[in-house]
Amino acid sequence: MKNAADRLLNEIDKKKNPCIVGLDPTIDKIPKFLKSGRIDSDDPFNAIGELLFEFNSMIIDQIHDIVPAVKPQMAFYEMYGHLGVKAFEETIKYAKSKGLIVIEDGKRNDIGSTATAYAKGHIGRVSMMDGCHMPVFDMDYLTVNPYLGSDGLKPFITECQEEGNGIFILVKTSNPSSGELQDLLLEDKRPVFEVVASLVDELSNSVIGERNYSSVGAVVGATYPETAEKLRKLMPKSIFLVPGYGAQGGSAKDVCPCFNTDGYGAIVNSSRGIIFAYLKDKYNKEFTPEEFHKAARQAAIDMRDDIVSALNDVDKLPAHW
Amino acid sequence: MKNAADRLLNEIDKKKNPCIVGLDPTIDKIPKFLKSGRIDSDDPFNAIGELLFEFNSMIIDQIHDIVPAVKPQMAFYEMYGHLGVKAFEETIKYAKSKGLIVIEDGKRNDIGSTATAYAKGHIGRVSMMDGCHMPVFDMDYLTVNPYLGSDGLKPFITECQEEGNGIFILVKTSNPSSGELQDLLLEDKRPVFEVVASLVDELSNSVIGERNYSSVGAVVGATYPETAEKLRKLMPKSIFLVPGYGAQGGSAKDVCPCFNTDGYGAIVNSSRGIIFAYLKDKYNKEFTPEEFHKAARQAAIDMRDDIVSALNDVDKLPAHW
Repeated sequence: MKNAADRLLNEIDKKKNPCIVGLDPTIDKIPKFLKSGRIDSDDPFNAIGELLFEFNSMIIDQIHDIVPAVKPQMAFYEMYGHLGVKAFEETIKYAKSKGLIVIEDGKRNDIGSTATAYAKGHIGRVSMMDGCHMPVFDMDYLTVNPYLGSDGLKPFITECQEEGNGIFILVKTSNPSSGELQDLLLEDKRPVFEVVASLVDELSNSVIGERNYSSVGAVVGATYPETAEKLRKLMPKSIFLVPGYGAQGGSAKDVCPCFNTDGYGAIVNSSRGIIFAYLKDKYNKEFTPEEFHKAARQAAIDMRDDIVSALNDVDKLPAHW
Repeated sequence: MKNAADRLLNEIDKKKNPCIVGLDPTIDKIPKFLKSGRIDSDDPFNAIGELLFEFNSMIIDQIHDIVPAVKPQMAFYEMYGHLGVKAFEETIKYAKSKGLIVIEDGKRNDIGSTATAYAKGHIGRVSMMDGCHMPVFDMDYLTVNPYLGSDGLKPFITECQEEGNGIFILVKTSNPSSGELQDLLLEDKRPVFEVVASLVDELSNSVIGERNYSSVGAVVGATYPETAEKLRKLMPKSIFLVPGYGAQGGSAKDVCPCFNTDGYGAIVNSSRGIIFAYLKDKYNKEFTPEEFHKAARQAAIDMRDDIVSALNDVDKLPAHW
């Protein structure tokens, strides 16, 4: 399907679930049974790369039939250098082989030929020496930072149009200090994030899919529900990627304003709450490898039920679910 | 030396040159003699990684005694996946072995544990499975995007303090659309970039080196000299990383306001103007591999002379040069 929003929405319908899982593995939280035999490796970076991929593939095995998409956070792979990036590439391939949409949380940004390089590497195809063009990361979606303005965003839009992939542009993030820049009030009383929202809306109109949503989406934190309500109106065709549920304090009720009345328009992410669910008392009564698997799966199911039930309460479930 | 600004300023003194070279290789512009024998490789990504590293090492050989620092732009490596990142790592090691300061232009940004992962991977040390901490990219400096506010920047500051490395925070970028966000006027008539400048100044005070400059610097484009003059006053202890000279239209005169009256306080970058100098008519009369080498070297010398002479004209050369 040649539009990322169409692919994502179809997958959401298939799973009847707008919740996604962030693949943000940190080695101190990865279960010991996965580390044993690797700790004294002669090639410790390679061992960590293998560990990250094995951890992710176990999570993917448990959740691929429950959620429409996964969101690997590039920082946690890149921090281990090129062997970490190799594990990232393997994770993407495995997730795609299981039918999942893959959203890279990379928050990339630059201008001109550099932005084009990021866009082609992550959501397009790169030039090879023989003149061919090949996909590299081959992501369905990439998150992008708007601080450099529209000429920092257009090279990504070009790939959305040509390759049928998508981006989520940071508009209002979920962290406490997001307001230091994003909430600054302008002369006309609008906060900065509303200007970004207008820019996103303008760009979104150039890549509308068959289901009337754009493959240019927006990151809107679950921790600011009133803001989300306003932004929902300013960017009617953009799907919101919503961080901040669970670990960062956003509740199921808080994320409802991110959805349109048709029941679509947002995906809600949880990372640690799912992948490290085995560390919570709730799931951790008798810890075995199987318990680790079950905890992640159960946490993904619990999150789905929590969000779907909150959407049902406010009449925002898709009519045919 | 435990402060990145001290290391950078000493290297500037040694070379009597505040100009740096951006290592932004694009394969269509890399000379043919470097590509021959690699084009039909069975492992085309590995062949490109080797090409990028060989190209960079030739440039470094020609300029390491002229400039204080190089600035590899991560996008041009990352776009070829983990084998591109491997070439990036090899480039950093080679540049450091030649005594150069290395500034990664990555414009990374995120919050909380994710920002910490970027900071540790790029300018700090990461946790290994055995509990040790190892440097990965081991950069002297990384560029960072401020859109997420101070809790997106503090994890990087921590590494500046603990590891003695540095960051350059985007304040006012050189591209035409930078004003769409950065120039927006607030209720109090200040543009957004001045708020970012105040935040940079506040953060910069926590990592001042022996030479009274901070290892928290700012990216300030050469294409807006009046703005640079204002920003110079708002961030007196921050070194400015100045893009936009040459290819993007900034002249030697335009960059002078980025310097303090002591002759320090800025480094001026040129990428394509140096590394692809061999493509300019001026240097390209009889093109051989040696001519390619000479063109890069001569372009680096010409740039140094251009900037140093402009600084001399406005009385901004360090007194002892």
